[in-house]
Amino acid sequence: MNRLHAEHALLPEGFAREVLLAWDADGTLTTVQPDAPRPAGVERIQGLIVPGLPNLHSHAFQRAFAGLTETRGDTQDSFWTWRDRMYRFAGAITPEQMEAVATQLYVEMLRAGYTSVCEFHYLHRDGDGRPYANRAEMALRLVAAARRAGIGLTLLPVLYQASGFGAKPPRADQKRFINGVDELLRIVETLRAHGVRTGVAPHSLRAVPPAALKDLLDGITALDASAPIHIHIAEQIQEVDDCLAWSGARPLQWLLAHAPVDPRWCLVHATHLNDAEREDAARSGAVIGLCPSTEANLGDGLFDLPAWRDKGGAWGIGSDSHASVDAAEELRLLEYGQRLARRQRNVGIAQEMWNAAVAGGAQAAGRPVAGLAPGRQADFVRLADAMLDDLAPAERLASHVFAGHRRDAVREAWVAGRKVLHAGRHAGAPAAEQGFLAARARLREALR
Amino acid sequence: MNRLHAEHALLPEGFAREVLLAWDADGTLTTVQPDAPRPAGVERIQGLIVPGLPNLHSHAFQRAFAGLTETRGDTQDSFWTWRDRMYRFAGAITPEQMEAVATQLYVEMLRAGYTSVCEFHYLHRDGDGRPYANRAEMALRLVAAARRAGIGLTLLPVLYQASGFGAKPPRADQKRFINGVDELLRIVETLRAHGVRTGVAPHSLRAVPPAALKDLLDGITALDASAPIHIHIAEQIQEVDDCLAWSGARPLQWLLAHAPVDPRWCLVHATHLNDAEREDAARSGAVIGLCPSTEANLGDGLFDLPAWRDKGGAWGIGSDSHASVDAAEELRLLEYGQRLARRQRNVGIAQEMWNAAVAGGAQAAGRPVAGLAPGRQADFVRLADAMLDDLAPAERLASHVFAGHRRDAVREAWVAGRKVLHAGRHAGAPAAEQGFLAARARLREALR
Repeated sequence: MNRLHAEHALLPEGFAREVLLAWDADGTLTTVQPDAPRPAGVERIQGLIVPGLPNLHSHAFQRAFAGLTETRGDTQDSFWTWRDRMYRFAGAITPEQMEAVATQLYVEMLRAGYTSVCEFHYLHRDGDGRPYANRAEMALRLVAAARRAGIGLTLLPVLYQASGFGAKPPRADQKRFINGVDELLRIVETLRAHGVRTGVAPHSLRAVPPAALKDLLDGITALDASAPIHIHIAEQIQEVDDCLAWSGARPLQWLLAHAPVDPRWCLVHATHLNDAEREDAARSGAVIGLCPSTEANLGDGLFDLPAWRDKGGAWGIGSDSHASVDAAEELRLLEYGQRLARRQRNVGIAQEMWNAAVAGGAQAAGRPVAGLAPGRQADFVRLADAMLDDLAPAERLASHVFAGHRRDAVREAWVAGRKVLHAGRHAGAPAAEQGFLAARARLREALR
Repeated sequence: MNRLHAEHALLPEGFAREVLLAWDADGTLTTVQPDAPRPAGVERIQGLIVPGLPNLHSHAFQRAFAGLTETRGDTQDSFWTWRDRMYRFAGAITPEQMEAVATQLYVEMLRAGYTSVCEFHYLHRDGDGRPYANRAEMALRLVAAARRAGIGLTLLPVLYQASGFGAKPPRADQKRFINGVDELLRIVETLRAHGVRTGVAPHSLRAVPPAALKDLLDGITALDASAPIHIHIAEQIQEVDDCLAWSGARPLQWLLAHAPVDPRWCLVHATHLNDAEREDAARSGAVIGLCPSTEANLGDGLFDLPAWRDKGGAWGIGSDSHASVDAAEELRLLEYGQRLARRQRNVGIAQEMWNAAVAGGAQAAGRPVAGLAPGRQADFVRLADAMLDDLAPAERLASHVFAGHRRDAVREAWVAGRKVLHAGRHAGAPAAEQGFLAARARLREALR
């Protein structure tokens, strides 16, 4: 039995004092008791413990070119010109580089308040578009990276068959991620055999024709009826227009009418919705995956969070392209967008947002990491910042999100009860950093 | 003669290599020579030197309650409910606390990429609304703080006479900042006698009736024809509506028609402008003071920067309420707002934005801190981040702004040629932090 005693902790119902936490050998919480005396020999944790945020949307390899596309191209830059550059990068990365980049990213995530991650993984094939000898080669590199970093993982192998609505043939620069449903389900089986929490991701309606979508959903449901299903949807206006031209329906409208959308589903971005789509999506029980820093970086648009909350909708946070890797910054950007759009303050409150993102992130991950309560996994972090530590817990968390003094305020992180960050340091960080820098240097050379 | 030799530097015309910098005993640059050999005995600076950003809008005392108003009030929160809370705080602060809070803030600014600051200073009187024995008491506390921190300073004593358009009588909670034009000009004279770069700030059109505005402008021009003049304008829709109701004109429209707006002027926020106002304001030569983190935190709205740039308008950055103290984050938020509004990427580019904000900030400060060129003050910082240092300079700065790995990437800072930050450390930081924490603790008690 592992135990610790926290001065302050954010529980699903709010802040509590003198909280005794205990978990079993699997890392599952067995006791979360506020106002508890400290038993002899149990470690005391000063300050504030909060649940780690599940990062519900990641393309790990993109961390290696964060910051490298912030220069002007020949034409007006947009999501689509960014994607062209990203594809060049995606075309060059090797399995070794994938593992190196992901390892460093996952260490960064632990330092940034995330304790688990959902990988929306589409680079299945080699640079020539041929399957690797082990078809799960690239996916297993992500598994290795997550294990080296000690972060929780849900892997979502991506089906990507077409370059546009109406089963438009794939582009040459999409050859690494084209695959058949059977090929994808074999990767899923391999990952499950490795003990990895695995779902699937039909990439988007533009990349997955209706028949393939149905086959994929039937296939994954037969393998695992509770497997998470993630899809990019309604991120860009052009995508909405193309879907309307193809089907007469908006993307989420089409999906809700043609697929069994339910709480297994994570609708990633869902930026451009109308009220009927919000109503129906909330009723489905699906969670919406918001990626504020990426959506701002790519100029996607602002999600209307209050309208979604009014329908009772669940949501969580992803760092997606990893321009930023900082849970607090994602929540800050999300809230600032709402304030600017509504010309109000405190549309959301830090503690409510944090708990909502934990619950929604856990749902998207299909893993029991939904906060500090018995039966859930012991995933949490300790915040410390000498300039904030004298504040009351609610002010303390609000200041962390909106007015932090240091970026390394996440000092300790526990994943399934195992401490992976000590005083801001991760034992694997020096090796991870060197691996990342070497991989990025080779990738930049390859692209010259 | 002081000299150093930089591997890379951002000059007004772009990035340069092997740059020899030299400055005189006053801290004025005498040589900025790219592609120069390193003379024997001259210190070599590895990595990237960029000019420090002048922070053109600061209310220093507000740093002590950053993060403390991110909780929901009884009614829907807005700029105006935030202001009520801020006034309670402003009513309680003592001169000693002001100095303590400002000292810590200014040390933070140096670590965050700012090398000078414009204080928009309105807390002139004591808590009962009586002048201090030395009417410049509070202003001199800011001067002392800036000198302790080693940051450049422009002080803008604020005239605040009315609580609304039409010379509405002041509110009880505005008694610390009410003052007459003569009283204000005496504070200006005192500051000038102390060698402080001093301008004035008519707070806003709602707080300064037309006759007082004219008297103030006549008075400051007689004292110093080049003194900076700052004013809050068009931050809130309600202010625009109230001005229209009062005068039939929008705030900036009224100001441009009734005051000699010229390059001395800094129009702070100017969020809600129409195209005619932009046209006329740009022609005046005034600089617009953008405060992206505060404008987001307060739900003001988004400034249309491309439309202002199209008119050739100058702009700079202020951290204002200091929810954030981070030059890179301000530029990131500014650019992300433009991307979200336009659904484009790379509306601005980091190096162009950085240089524009330096030039505009220097204009607003009325001080020669407009970048790395002979005749300008030697205000610059060195950026270093092991995860970014292998990149080319343009990628390096873009990554610092959009995808930084560490917040303390500003490792050294020089102000007027004097090194005030060494390897991320400021000699005065420990004392400044303790002073800040003690002051905030007493303020929070006073407000209980």
